[in-house]
Amino acid sequence: MSKKEKKAWSGRFTQTTRPVVERFNASLGFDRRLYRQDIRGSVVHAIMLGRQGIIPEKDAKRIAGGLKRIEGEIDRGEFRFDIADEDIHMAVERRLKEIIGPVGGRLHTARSRNDQVATSFRLFIRDAIDELTGKIRKLQSALFAKAREHLDTIAPAYTHMQMAQPIRLAHWFLAHFTALDRDVERLGDARKRVNVLPLGSAALAGTNFPIDRDWVARELGFDSVSKNSIDAVGDRDFAAEFLFDVAMTGVHLSRFAEELIIFSTSEFGVIDLPDAFCTGSSIMPQKKNPDVPELVRGKTGRLIGHLVSMLVVMKGLPLAYNKDLQEDKEPVFDAFDQLSISLEALAELTPELKADVKKLAGRAEDGFMTAVDVADRLTMMGTPFRESHAIVGKLVRACIEKGVGFSGMTAKELGAIDPRLVKVKPGGITPQKSADGKDTEGGTARRRIVQRLKEIEKEIKKWR
Amino acid sequence: MSKKEKKAWSGRFTQTTRPVVERFNASLGFDRRLYRQDIRGSVVHAIMLGRQGIIPEKDAKRIAGGLKRIEGEIDRGEFRFDIADEDIHMAVERRLKEIIGPVGGRLHTARSRNDQVATSFRLFIRDAIDELTGKIRKLQSALFAKAREHLDTIAPAYTHMQMAQPIRLAHWFLAHFTALDRDVERLGDARKRVNVLPLGSAALAGTNFPIDRDWVARELGFDSVSKNSIDAVGDRDFAAEFLFDVAMTGVHLSRFAEELIIFSTSEFGVIDLPDAFCTGSSIMPQKKNPDVPELVRGKTGRLIGHLVSMLVVMKGLPLAYNKDLQEDKEPVFDAFDQLSISLEALAELTPELKADVKKLAGRAEDGFMTAVDVADRLTMMGTPFRESHAIVGKLVRACIEKGVGFSGMTAKELGAIDPRLVKVKPGGITPQKSADGKDTEGGTARRRIVQRLKEIEKEIKKWR
Amino acid sequence: MSKKEKKAWSGRFTQTTRPVVERFNASLGFDRRLYRQDIRGSVVHAIMLGRQGIIPEKDAKRIAGGLKRIEGEIDRGEFRFDIADEDIHMAVERRLKEIIGPVGGRLHTARSRNDQVATSFRLFIRDAIDELTGKIRKLQSALFAKAREHLDTIAPAYTHMQMAQPIRLAHWFLAHFTALDRDVERLGDARKRVNVLPLGSAALAGTNFPIDRDWVARELGFDSVSKNSIDAVGDRDFAAEFLFDVAMTGVHLSRFAEELIIFSTSEFGVIDLPDAFCTGSSIMPQKKNPDVPELVRGKTGRLIGHLVSMLVVMKGLPLAYNKDLQEDKEPVFDAFDQLSISLEALAELTPELKADVKKLAGRAEDGFMTAVDVADRLTMMGTPFRESHAIVGKLVRACIEKGVGFSGMTAKELGAIDPRLVKVKPGGITPQKSADGKDTEGGTARRRIVQRLKEIEKEIKKWR
Amino acid sequence: MSKKEKKAWSGRFTQTTRPVVERFNASLGFDRRLYRQDIRGSVVHAIMLGRQGIIPEKDAKRIAGGLKRIEGEIDRGEFRFDIADEDIHMAVERRLKEIIGPVGGRLHTARSRNDQVATSFRLFIRDAIDELTGKIRKLQSALFAKAREHLDTIAPAYTHMQMAQPIRLAHWFLAHFTALDRDVERLGDARKRVNVLPLGSAALAGTNFPIDRDWVARELGFDSVSKNSIDAVGDRDFAAEFLFDVAMTGVHLSRFAEELIIFSTSEFGVIDLPDAFCTGSSIMPQKKNPDVPELVRGKTGRLIGHLVSMLVVMKGLPLAYNKDLQEDKEPVFDAFDQLSISLEALAELTPELKADVKKLAGRAEDGFMTAVDVADRLTMMGTPFRESHAIVGKLVRACIEKGVGFSGMTAKELGAIDPRLVKVKPGGITPQKSADGKDTEGGTARRRIVQRLKEIEKEIKKWR
Repeated sequence: MSKKEKKAWSGRFTQTTRPVVERFNASLGFDRRLYRQDIRGSVVHAIMLGRQGIIPEKDAKRIAGGLKRIEGEIDRGEFRFDIADEDIHMAVERRLKEIIGPVGGRLHTARSRNDQVATSFRLFIRDAIDELTGKIRKLQSALFAKAREHLDTIAPAYTHMQMAQPIRLAHWFLAHFTALDRDVERLGDARKRVNVLPLGSAALAGTNFPIDRDWVARELGFDSVSKNSIDAVGDRDFAAEFLFDVAMTGVHLSRFAEELIIFSTSEFGVIDLPDAFCTGSSIMPQKKNPDVPELVRGKTGRLIGHLVSMLVVMKGLPLAYNKDLQEDKEPVFDAFDQLSISLEALAELTPELKADVKKLAGRAEDGFMTAVDVADRLTMMGTPFRESHAIVGKLVRACIEKGVGFSGMTAKELGAIDPRLVKVKPGGITPQKSADGKDTEGGTARRRIVQRLKEIEKEIKKWR
Repeated sequence: MSKKEKKAWSGRFTQTTRPVVERFNASLGFDRRLYRQDIRGSVVHAIMLGRQGIIPEKDAKRIAGGLKRIEGEIDRGEFRFDIADEDIHMAVERRLKEIIGPVGGRLHTARSRNDQVATSFRLFIRDAIDELTGKIRKLQSALFAKAREHLDTIAPAYTHMQMAQPIRLAHWFLAHFTALDRDVERLGDARKRVNVLPLGSAALAGTNFPIDRDWVARELGFDSVSKNSIDAVGDRDFAAEFLFDVAMTGVHLSRFAEELIIFSTSEFGVIDLPDAFCTGSSIMPQKKNPDVPELVRGKTGRLIGHLVSMLVVMKGLPLAYNKDLQEDKEPVFDAFDQLSISLEALAELTPELKADVKKLAGRAEDGFMTAVDVADRLTMMGTPFRESHAIVGKLVRACIEKGVGFSGMTAKELGAIDPRLVKVKPGGITPQKSADGKDTEGGTARRRIVQRLKEIEKEIKKWR
Repeated sequence: MSKKEKKAWSGRFTQTTRPVVERFNASLGFDRRLYRQDIRGSVVHAIMLGRQGIIPEKDAKRIAGGLKRIEGEIDRGEFRFDIADEDIHMAVERRLKEIIGPVGGRLHTARSRNDQVATSFRLFIRDAIDELTGKIRKLQSALFAKAREHLDTIAPAYTHMQMAQPIRLAHWFLAHFTALDRDVERLGDARKRVNVLPLGSAALAGTNFPIDRDWVARELGFDSVSKNSIDAVGDRDFAAEFLFDVAMTGVHLSRFAEELIIFSTSEFGVIDLPDAFCTGSSIMPQKKNPDVPELVRGKTGRLIGHLVSMLVVMKGLPLAYNKDLQEDKEPVFDAFDQLSISLEALAELTPELKADVKKLAGRAEDGFMTAVDVADRLTMMGTPFRESHAIVGKLVRACIEKGVGFSGMTAKELGAIDPRLVKVKPGGITPQKSADGKDTEGGTARRRIVQRLKEIEKEIKKWR
Repeated sequence: MSKKEKKAWSGRFTQTTRPVVERFNASLGFDRRLYRQDIRGSVVHAIMLGRQGIIPEKDAKRIAGGLKRIEGEIDRGEFRFDIADEDIHMAVERRLKEIIGPVGGRLHTARSRNDQVATSFRLFIRDAIDELTGKIRKLQSALFAKAREHLDTIAPAYTHMQMAQPIRLAHWFLAHFTALDRDVERLGDARKRVNVLPLGSAALAGTNFPIDRDWVARELGFDSVSKNSIDAVGDRDFAAEFLFDVAMTGVHLSRFAEELIIFSTSEFGVIDLPDAFCTGSSIMPQKKNPDVPELVRGKTGRLIGHLVSMLVVMKGLPLAYNKDLQEDKEPVFDAFDQLSISLEALAELTPELKADVKKLAGRAEDGFMTAVDVADRLTMMGTPFRESHAIVGKLVRACIEKGVGFSGMTAKELGAIDPRLVKVKPGGITPQKSADGKDTEGGTARRRIVQRLKEIEKEIKKWR
């Protein structure tokens, strides 16, 4: 049998495929990763064909049996991949015919590679969403545990990387937790659009056979069936949306990573990353480098790049299937892998972060971080806030000039700036008092954080 | 009063801002577009401050009155913008104090620009989502009307831009309709995450005042209040997600545009774009150029670019507010504008598209587009599909060699290829029969399209 | 020997690396591709160390010998890669010490992984530029041959995908040729910035040893040595610039691909892609799909995505080495591979393109494509061009109404539109005359194309 | 005169343009910015037409005179822009005819908007390159001056944001200087490809008139004329390349900005940004925020986004002009503006940066930053470097355990780790000695920096 004869579609062709084209076209090198999804879909398709009397039921059974055997072969690494098969779908069908003979040729009834590929790919992304959701939850659990541990750690919080206001460190851990909550929600929304069955759209027009799409959908766990066959075979929105959600999560991790890197410099020195998550230098024996957060931050580039790839592929593409769409898989596979391992690494790292509680508390005393509180007290005494703000601005300037904090100002000095300051006693507002003053929903007061921790604890129970 | 004194935050500063810095920092040039949202938020904030007794109720009323007067001034173009105000928020507050005096300084009690900006921006994007949704719906309505008009137009459908199978043209219009349905759904999902009130988070820690966030949320139409103040002031996920949704919709429009451009070439010649949507050439008097779809396609670049901008801005940014975030608005404004006008232009163009029904029908006869149907009939007679496919491949080759279509083959010639072909009578399968054979959900059979049109008709009623 | 002891940098560490971290950090999976470059650099470095008396010359020789042996082992697939080695550089050094003993530990004198990695990576990209240049030249040669073949093929040219003016088809092939010329030039410019030796910068400050950087640069073919050690170890501009150049070339290929796809539709039907470059359909036996150009077009997304990745990685990164930079290699490797194979496929495809010369000539008669020529003749007779343009506009409209071309208008009809038209005789301007009228540099006149072909022929000789 | 009649291309059209299309198509809102370039090109074109006898010389003079008058009108803000003019080119031509009558209609002889737009746009980008080059040079001058000022400031340098080795602070300023050198070089390379005259390509085929392209090129300062008219009207590589160069420079600025932000935190506290370059908080009176570097960093997103936009617009576009290309200008204009002001702001900021020389020197004593030097000394004594590295690793660990620096270890303790350490005397290596040991090209030794400063001083003279 000549090589050419092996192509399932070669009937009308008078030339064999050029080697460079074979190499160029073949997606087998990466789409073999879809073998479980492909086989899952094909088994259900075959059984449906049998149930509907489209092919003999015994043939359907033989096909299903053959497919399961192939799955085992691939699982065990015994399957021989051949680039001439083009893709995993053809590879599986070729092997099927080797195993069960020409009856294997009945499998491709009432479907096309166009709807078959879309089905496998949706199954993959659905699984990927579920797996990533689990991994985000694991990182969130670690952040939650840390928040609980640091309920009573007072720390400076930053805007513009300048010390801003005292907070409870728990609040910072929960800030990252909160961002990740949105990621899970967003993936869940994407899942609805992923989980629509395209099988039955065939090449683009639907099929001549009396298939049962609803049954197939139910068996494969799809929520619904696609409503327009042209759209269904050319739609890759679900992949782009998945890639956006992954990139967005990656951006969140990069923000956490950036803070870990900065907070663990010797200059900040408030977070210690365990040795087991750092590496050394090939030349500088004293170095301990925060590799994990740096890589997490760096990988954001890749995730954004993959999203761009997918959108560019789709831009200006006519409807239905075009070969350009073969470029959809690698970005999705790699984005999934990179986010997975980033989440795993951070989920293992987070429990071992050591915060220097004492240094944080000391830092929270610096930098006039209770200035807002002073201004707010003036305001509570009836001063319009803008005026209060101006008064405290002058107070800060006076302190800097004198080289002291608020508590270093005498009543006389305070009075010279503004008589109302004497009553406010700026020096008496401790960071903890400041934090606990922020007693509205979402604020950093102890009471609010305790309440939020309780809420989360309840939610976490639902995750399992 | 020196210029310096005008800065609300200048208390502790010893130098005045450099002109280049003023020019560089100022966002007033673009964020003035948020004035309605800013004022809406401030009015509700002020009233709440009064209700809670944080500021005197009469002051709250004067503030609200002043703000409404300012809105009118801006509406009427009477407001004097001054770059030294930095941004729209400061500009409004400055003017408020001009109008109602120092009591205007009470407005900024219990809030910070950080939560104020986030609130205005969320209101803007919420409005943008609603407006875009309406515009997508309008384009969908036009597509729906066209689908109805072309229920009985038989046309070739393409994969790889090669003629593939006969369809009803309605099916093609509905394919684009279906993609846009996902866009509306996606925007709706994003809206949930946009519609969370950040006000009350103040600078990043929450506020010392007993504000009523739930009341503010209700008054401003927010679904809920943010749960972590650090996260709330630095979160711009909602902008990124909006930009993704806009880019995705833009990609859909670019696909529609590409097809319009190709289908209206003289070579295809099956779609005619009305003169009113084309322009001519400055040099070639005979030209009629499809400017509208070309621009729609081109603008996709810009929409993807804006999404990238936003993600890059956020990458590696520490939590809470950093000035980098000022770069969030222009991409959102421009993406909204560009998608809006693209949708409007296509919604006006679509009803006027003329499809050349006769040419389409003729085209649908060409190209062996019923080959699948021939193969399927063989399969229905018991031949495994792969074998049927191979037989039809040979048939196509024989026809090409003879220079005829299926109907140009004699029974003898058919029999020579495969005896089963004689019974199938390939020449007898008309494009319409082919289309109507695709009678499963999502297929192009008349019955299925009629049913889908009915469904959509019902849905459309709910849109209003 | 415990696993931990294997890390070259582990002296100060008290914990061993976590498995997930090892997996996360390791770049060996992809940077092994740099083994030749790494070894080339190390051999020269070692010899230089010997020449300068920094290490004993006999040790240098043993090191060089060991390295060459390792290169052979990797070439032959005999080298055992171990993820615990982290990267190719450590893997080679580890093996070196296995082969020649502790003296292998002298190799890392006066260098750091920071400058070593940068050196290997620059060598790789230099090689990649040279290889891609060769491949672009090959495609250009094919385009040139086609241009020569189609010197006398008259064809319609398009703007806005609408027929615009008659050209010689050679001109179209040379248009693509010209764009590729810029790509070669751009890669050549990038090469200058790639070809700067960073070795000797060590970790970031330079080295304590009296190394001879100029000698190393000469031996490795670098044009110069880097001038600032901090910059040298953190600079990845050369990778970003390479990725831009690759993406730009990819965009050019996508434009060529788009035209091939459209021109080979049955509707256009003027270009035939050979069977050997197409594939069929799994369901539609009649299909012949232009997979190669579609994939080329699709891969543009990936190339643009890789460029974005790299820029995002570098955005906001402090100077010198940060682990984020490990993300630099995969985009470069993949961009190189994808562009390489795209160029190869197109270089093989181009010679086999069949243009339907007759159909093109016929098409060139249609569509009033000589309208500019009519207007120009009016202008040459003294009519201001704008007026000429308007007159021809009316002529075109009249022809459309009558359903004829220019030659279908009687003198009387012409005179009724404008008396000057009678003299111009619009119907007499053949497409060939039209083309040959464009006789200025860059124009499509035969004389100009012949001249351009000669120029290129001369240039091509210099390529070899 | 009806509105429709105003369109220069409307001859063959039977419908007037829809308002939404007019609004959608019009580029006048942004391309008016090209008026000087458009007029410059048109004046030279008209004079050439006269010189070549294509139009009467006196008409050419009237046209040139009219154009200059229009330039003055626009300069002075007296020109009335009307969206119905579509773009700046049509607006100028319309006004020309108002001023000099129908003879103005002769200007568009032998050209098309396609080559006219490309010419104006290239002139704009050429000017932009020159202006940006000047601005980069200004920032470099400021960095150079700072480097000179801090020749003898010893400071810690970082890899992975962890203290790595002592350097002279001049070296750090020069690192940023060096990166910018590449940007200037890259822009210069792009300029060659920008500076090619497309005028004379007309619509896409060249022109029927005997124009003198070389003369036009010389008059407009172009280096050469384009060699293929189809390529010339559809080529926007020069815009994409410009956008890449701008984005790359932006990435460099973002890296400088990131370091300024981190170094000016209170925790690092080694760089002070002057008040005039910071802003305060609307709520926190003590805040002084590094707005300028933050905005510079943020704007990188926008620059990368613009590059993406341009590449996406061009992806898959057929050759020659397509309306999509109208999307080329706004990203270029905005990228130019944003990079310009970022450069200006940093060039004004840099001279005023205050480095805390004392704190830096103290910091440079910390952190075992001379560890490499200790290892190098061991190596110079004959120990293989890897072994030296391991010994110093143990030394560092011992110091950490004892809570001292190298100088806190007794000879006995040193000997216990390794006898060779006693001779090396790790505690005696001062940061300055360490820095000055790095005495190879590109190293941080005083001698090398002095030499580099001299080289740069010479180069700077050539800039003017």
